[in-house]
Amino acid sequence: MKHDVINFTEKFAKFSEHWSPRVIAEMNDYQFKLVKVSGEFVWHEHPDTDEVFIVIAGTLNIEFRDRTITLQTGEMFVVPKGVEHKPTATSECKVMIIEPKGVVNTGDVGSELTAQNDVWV
Amino acid sequence: MKHDVINFTEKFAKFSEHWSPRVIAEMNDYQFKLVKVSGEFVWHEHPDTDEVFIVIAGTLNIEFRDRTITLQTGEMFVVPKGVEHKPTATSECKVMIIEPKGVVNTGDVGSELTAQNDVWV
Repeated sequence: MKHDVINFTEKFAKFSEHWSPRVIAEMNDYQFKLVKVSGEFVWHEHPDTDEVFIVIAGTLNIEFRDRTITLQTGEMFVVPKGVEHKPTATSECKVMIIEPKGVVNTGDVGSELTAQNDVWV
Repeated sequence: MKHDVINFTEKFAKFSEHWSPRVIAEMNDYQFKLVKVSGEFVWHEHPDTDEVFIVIAGTLNIEFRDRTITLQTGEMFVVPKGVEHKPTATSECKVMIIEPKGVVNTGDVGSELTAQNDVWV
């Protein structure tokens, strides 16, 4: 068994790009991804899956068509499948995302913010 | 969409029992569970699924037949399916577990530590 202990702080120190998720672990056919976010993302949805956001450090807003939620460090939210959402952050926020392998960050929407998938750190 | 923001500290304040996981969220057919652990658990395995441990606060040891790992706050580990393991903690540790809905805490082993499943907090 070659699996290693994964330290979030150490992993975050290894990249700086915003809106570019890095895979840190797999559980069955799901992936755990770390992402640094700042500014505004694009409206999108994931038609086939829920998506979990956990704030590791900072403040993350997730806009929905009917409301906006705010997540602080130590808080999580499950965005249901098929629900349009737009993450934003007024200053850099460190987030962990959990979702099935293969999910693209911009979901159903092509964008200049569409990140390469399955990039590990 | 009735989902709420989930705050780990607030959820942990709502129960005190050790080795008794409480569900805080579902993502597709997976569950996120919080558990307070202290002392020694039992050797067991989950033959059909990987299992993720994330330490929210404290120090968690996971013994395997060939080594023992130690997780601190802000660290995670994926226990591969079918691998025997035994969590221990010398003082109370707060942990988040992620695994498919229906997984029993003691896996393939019946024990006085087998917890009721699917209890939410």
